[in-house]
Amino acid sequence: MSIMLSIEETVSWLKERDNYLILTHRRPDGDTVGCAGALAEGLQEFGKTAYILPNPEITPRYAPFMSDYLAPEGYAYEHVIIVDTASTKLFPKDGDIFFDKVSLCIDHHPSNTFYAKYTYLDASAAACGEVIYDILALLNGKISQKSADGIYVAVSTDTGCFSFANTTANTLKVASLAIEAGASHVKLNRKLFRTKTRARVKIEGMIVDGMEFYFDDKVAIISISNEMMNTAGADEDDVDDIASLPGAVKGVLAGITIRELSSPNDCKVSVRTSPAVSANGIAARFGGGGHAMASGFSLDKSIPETKAAILNELKDFFPAPV
Amino acid sequence: MSIMLSIEETVSWLKERDNYLILTHRRPDGDTVGCAGALAEGLQEFGKTAYILPNPEITPRYAPFMSDYLAPEGYAYEHVIIVDTASTKLFPKDGDIFFDKVSLCIDHHPSNTFYAKYTYLDASAAACGEVIYDILALLNGKISQKSADGIYVAVSTDTGCFSFANTTANTLKVASLAIEAGASHVKLNRKLFRTKTRARVKIEGMIVDGMEFYFDDKVAIISISNEMMNTAGADEDDVDDIASLPGAVKGVLAGITIRELSSPNDCKVSVRTSPAVSANGIAARFGGGGHAMASGFSLDKSIPETKAAILNELKDFFPAPV
Repeated sequence: MSIMLSIEETVSWLKERDNYLILTHRRPDGDTVGCAGALAEGLQEFGKTAYILPNPEITPRYAPFMSDYLAPEGYAYEHVIIVDTASTKLFPKDGDIFFDKVSLCIDHHPSNTFYAKYTYLDASAAACGEVIYDILALLNGKISQKSADGIYVAVSTDTGCFSFANTTANTLKVASLAIEAGASHVKLNRKLFRTKTRARVKIEGMIVDGMEFYFDDKVAIISISNEMMNTAGADEDDVDDIASLPGAVKGVLAGITIRELSSPNDCKVSVRTSPAVSANGIAARFGGGGHAMASGFSLDKSIPETKAAILNELKDFFPAPV
Repeated sequence: MSIMLSIEETVSWLKERDNYLILTHRRPDGDTVGCAGALAEGLQEFGKTAYILPNPEITPRYAPFMSDYLAPEGYAYEHVIIVDTASTKLFPKDGDIFFDKVSLCIDHHPSNTFYAKYTYLDASAAACGEVIYDILALLNGKISQKSADGIYVAVSTDTGCFSFANTTANTLKVASLAIEAGASHVKLNRKLFRTKTRARVKIEGMIVDGMEFYFDDKVAIISISNEMMNTAGADEDDVDDIASLPGAVKGVLAGITIRELSSPNDCKVSVRTSPAVSANGIAARFGGGGHAMASGFSLDKSIPETKAAILNELKDFFPAPV
């Protein structure tokens, strides 16, 4: 069990202690990295010592937003804070030693398992960046330009530049306040949303070219093989968010993305659906799970075998008209 | 010359008169249509009679946002208002009869030529929707759900869902307030930004597949022929904003889009650049013009001839290292 804090208690908690180590989650995204950077900056501005634990899975896309705050070798921290992390399963790689050592968890996931000694959870926030904004505004009375950049990265990336269904009035309000506080949103938008690498453009073209439609065009399937990745010269950053592609086609109710993993008989499948179809229900047929409109699973099969297995199960979800 | 109004004077002006006809601009986009719809709704809520002149170039993408307010046949209007329209050159098709009949122009373009009897201009606004928001908030004391939808459409489409360089803190603030007032942003985002027609997906794949790079990959060129449009089954809505594609590739400083028009020896060229390169300067070589980072021109040539002519001029903009 965890002691639940109010925002005022969270700010008092931070003021009363010192020497913080901030953790980000596994496969770090813009929200966890932006939050960690903004929090480290905000705590340092208040006069505290605060550093971020290096995350071995950090990608070039997000690395710059925490690079100024990385904990030096042998940093003698007193209190561990983790941001945007719902459960210990999502702790960073090699972060097992922190399982029972987290003093404070700051999060926005309704699925938080309350593993930390203290928790501040705002489940109404689309991004953890909204929560960090509130904390820093209360802690320092204002948001500095450097914190504003981190908060903007957090709220914009977690909502697909404010286009995803999770976006709320408060997300846009926090983004607006971050820009007023000096966030370089034009530069950040260009880097995060308006720019594609040549490899991304190439792999997207290959993927779209191979998109297949089934069940009266209500299902779209894309496949990404290692060979395609190699041909395009694409890395993980290049296929970020690619699972949203097939579901974005007009009329498609279920978008399926089959990604070949390291071995040719090992595929990761992402399912994205409209409200009318249960992504969770589809994934459950294969032992997977997730959310109502976004879920996933893995199969020890080749891409064609995986596709055949999925199409077979989808018959139940898209019955032929009698 | 035009009489410039303050926002308070604009609201008084609207209160004192009645029987309005609202015009949108040529090749209507989300900003002009969303503004017209929101303004018609807001004026009707205040008790005025207000309708929108049907625009012969309206596309299915934006038609729904003004369809509830179209002027009935023979509508006896007293005052013509035009929104989001910088000059009489941009008047709607068949709108010449209104050239000297516009009572009030509400706009955000710094290039406004002050052709209307009265003008309310806020050149700091990224979208005219921000201006309409301010007017309606003052007129009615609040924004209704229907007006909020129009305002959200206006501000979101004019800023590429808040990702373009024109987005400001106020754009996001107005979007946030529109959502608080009931704008159905989740549905609108899905329709306007998260959904692509199959024809769009297909034509985008074909275009990206044919993207060519020149001048040490600093220039990317895409071509769209009528044959490609036909093969993909694409219409104008499907190639909306496509000119931003080549400039979005990482490292590209100038993105060129060559679009074949009705005749095979008639091409429209769009130029999008990074700050380091003058889009206006490139277009000027061909008698065209526009903005520093977005410009265009037309050539009576085939696609290959147009491309050759552009590459020849670009030598001056991207000189080979000596």
